[in-house]
Amino acid sequence: MPVGFTKHHTIHAITGIRLAAAAAGIRYQNRHDLVLMELAPGTRVAAVFTKNVFRAAPVELAIKHLALAAPRYLLINSGNANAGVGAAGMQIALASTQAVADLMHVQAEQVVPFSTGVIGEQMDIHRITQTLPELAEQLHADGWQTAARAIMTTDTVEKLFSKTIQLQGQAIHITGMAKGSGMIQPNMATMLAYIATDLNVDNAQLATLLENSVEHSFNAITVDSDTSTNDACMLIATGAADLAFEQLSEQEQNAFVQAIDELMLLLAQAIVRDGEGASKFVTVTVHNASSDQQAKRVAFSIANSPLVKTALAASDANWGRIMAAAGKVEDDTLNLDSVDLSINGVQILQSSQLLESYLDEAGSEAMQAAEVTIALDLKLGNATKTVWTTDLTHEYIRINAEYRS
Amino acid sequence: MPVGFTKHHTIHAITGIRLAAAAAGIRYQNRHDLVLMELAPGTRVAAVFTKNVFRAAPVELAIKHLALAAPRYLLINSGNANAGVGAAGMQIALASTQAVADLMHVQAEQVVPFSTGVIGEQMDIHRITQTLPELAEQLHADGWQTAARAIMTTDTVEKLFSKTIQLQGQAIHITGMAKGSGMIQPNMATMLAYIATDLNVDNAQLATLLENSVEHSFNAITVDSDTSTNDACMLIATGAADLAFEQLSEQEQNAFVQAIDELMLLLAQAIVRDGEGASKFVTVTVHNASSDQQAKRVAFSIANSPLVKTALAASDANWGRIMAAAGKVEDDTLNLDSVDLSINGVQILQSSQLLESYLDEAGSEAMQAAEVTIALDLKLGNATKTVWTTDLTHEYIRINAEYRS
Repeated sequence: MPVGFTKHHTIHAITGIRLAAAAAGIRYQNRHDLVLMELAPGTRVAAVFTKNVFRAAPVELAIKHLALAAPRYLLINSGNANAGVGAAGMQIALASTQAVADLMHVQAEQVVPFSTGVIGEQMDIHRITQTLPELAEQLHADGWQTAARAIMTTDTVEKLFSKTIQLQGQAIHITGMAKGSGMIQPNMATMLAYIATDLNVDNAQLATLLENSVEHSFNAITVDSDTSTNDACMLIATGAADLAFEQLSEQEQNAFVQAIDELMLLLAQAIVRDGEGASKFVTVTVHNASSDQQAKRVAFSIANSPLVKTALAASDANWGRIMAAAGKVEDDTLNLDSVDLSINGVQILQSSQLLESYLDEAGSEAMQAAEVTIALDLKLGNATKTVWTTDLTHEYIRINAEYRS
Repeated sequence: MPVGFTKHHTIHAITGIRLAAAAAGIRYQNRHDLVLMELAPGTRVAAVFTKNVFRAAPVELAIKHLALAAPRYLLINSGNANAGVGAAGMQIALASTQAVADLMHVQAEQVVPFSTGVIGEQMDIHRITQTLPELAEQLHADGWQTAARAIMTTDTVEKLFSKTIQLQGQAIHITGMAKGSGMIQPNMATMLAYIATDLNVDNAQLATLLENSVEHSFNAITVDSDTSTNDACMLIATGAADLAFEQLSEQEQNAFVQAIDELMLLLAQAIVRDGEGASKFVTVTVHNASSDQQAKRVAFSIANSPLVKTALAASDANWGRIMAAAGKVEDDTLNLDSVDLSINGVQILQSSQLLESYLDEAGSEAMQAAEVTIALDLKLGNATKTVWTTDLTHEYIRINAEYRS
């Protein structure tokens, strides 16, 4: 069960987008594993992809197609990452986009492929092509829920959220879905995310918006420090609302950006809440580092430390492990001589000295919460970074030692 | 039980060194936890310490004392790291070295302190001082075995090895002990190691020898990517043999260096074999990287990947996870387009293509061995690096979720 996960019960359709999911039998029987997402003509998108060098063929092809044309269809499959299968991977990715193009009467370059699932097994293209007609028939503006479920792999819950913001008297909708629960680390992990709005946003604005928002959401989460071959995050603006971003006042623009940020953070945090084996949702904030880079490195060093994560699983306020994890960052400007450390508001260290009033029991009690915030104030400068992670439990090992077999 | 661990039954005393261990009751009752090691006058040492910023007081004091004088006594305690306790840590480290100095009639600077164990709990100095007379009485050239056991924390077996090498008609002995099984990652993890020889080696030679040897042994192992506050490795040359390193021919020097290297590698690998919860001893070799740095980063990225380590625990030849772990290294010169990958000699990938003859069953069978070698040939240059690690098991989590409580 995800930690502190709250479903949004109202999911707004985004005018200009229709979705469908079906069971192609790619890896498992009797579950939806293939999604077609239709974007109305004129829709603009921005996308970021995994930085892992070992990229899957669909990622390569998606990047290529996005550079050539404005996309009309996204084809997403779960169950198989179409990664690590050599030249066959690109053939399958090409064939699947061509099949969508033929069926929907668009150019192949207007179809963007996404895959997630097991690495290194060849995908059966026929399972996809034979399922496409069913998908085409079922395209529907209210297909978000079924699509969000279909893209899941080891996820235990679909990640789907919606927001509405009033701008110049109009209700502007933002709806996003994501999948992912393991192989999660900055720079796109095993995760796919699609966030759409009906506001009219131009390509450059959309790219900037995505880049900034990803930095504080999807690139600020980690489950196990492993990144993947297939990650992608796409921001989509259909422009169906009769209102453009550039028509907005600065205040309205900020409100819209904030709404996008909030939605992306909800999605990113949902991935951590549903992290493999997670029993805790953990926020790590490093305050007053000497640089953004230092703040980020120290925060991730704590968030990825197996010793910190096992202590979290045991509700052991083992602050020595937190400090040792911070200290292992190789950075000449880092020193830990006068830090403050607190866990869920219970202060443990002041100027690197154990508070005389601190009791182990108070620390353990704070650690027992399902949501734990570790706050480390370095007092070296002004940079702050927050990242989110999980604890490391027996269940994580069970899931990952059993995933393929 | 450690994986593939073979005890050396003959441990050679090193003339000029006497050791004793006793039960001071620092953390646990009824076990030895305090070691005094006496070095004859004229003994030379070289030492390297943890690069973790969050260094323990005894590490600070050891560095200071080593800069001031040639050491005559090493005082080593287990059960408490004397780390993260603020100014009290240095007071305790100073008081303990002073107590040894008073008892043994040397200067405090000639006493070097080492601590390992739990972080953040204040150590009772009286337990140490009251045990020192017993230690002084029991100093013995054959005290290696009892000392190696006394410095253990979560170790399940003492790590103690000996070698003899014939040089110019003399038997030159090398004996070393180490402790460590978790918080193991390059640049000195939670580990202490002391390697001694009776050959006469001058300070500069000793320092070079240690630095080179550590790079290919203690700095090439990882259990959980966490580094610690207290690590130290010391190379000791008593000079008791009537033979000096500089008198040796180049060939003899090489033979001696090789013997030291082999002993340090045995100790380093013993730490991995006894890694917390380890069920497998894993060798990761990256061949033909474009630089030493790249070879090392890729090797450690694989060796530290939780997904690779859980696959190892499950004997799942999940080569996709290995490739994804290699690919997450951020390095512009890295590409994985034509790599060869094999596991225990079973080739899986050739030029990044799955071998047609490869069968999952063969991979799984190879993975079932207690000792697994992952060999990745990048074909980008000439740099090679080998590192050693363990799998990630339920037992690791049990140990680290229960260590403090």
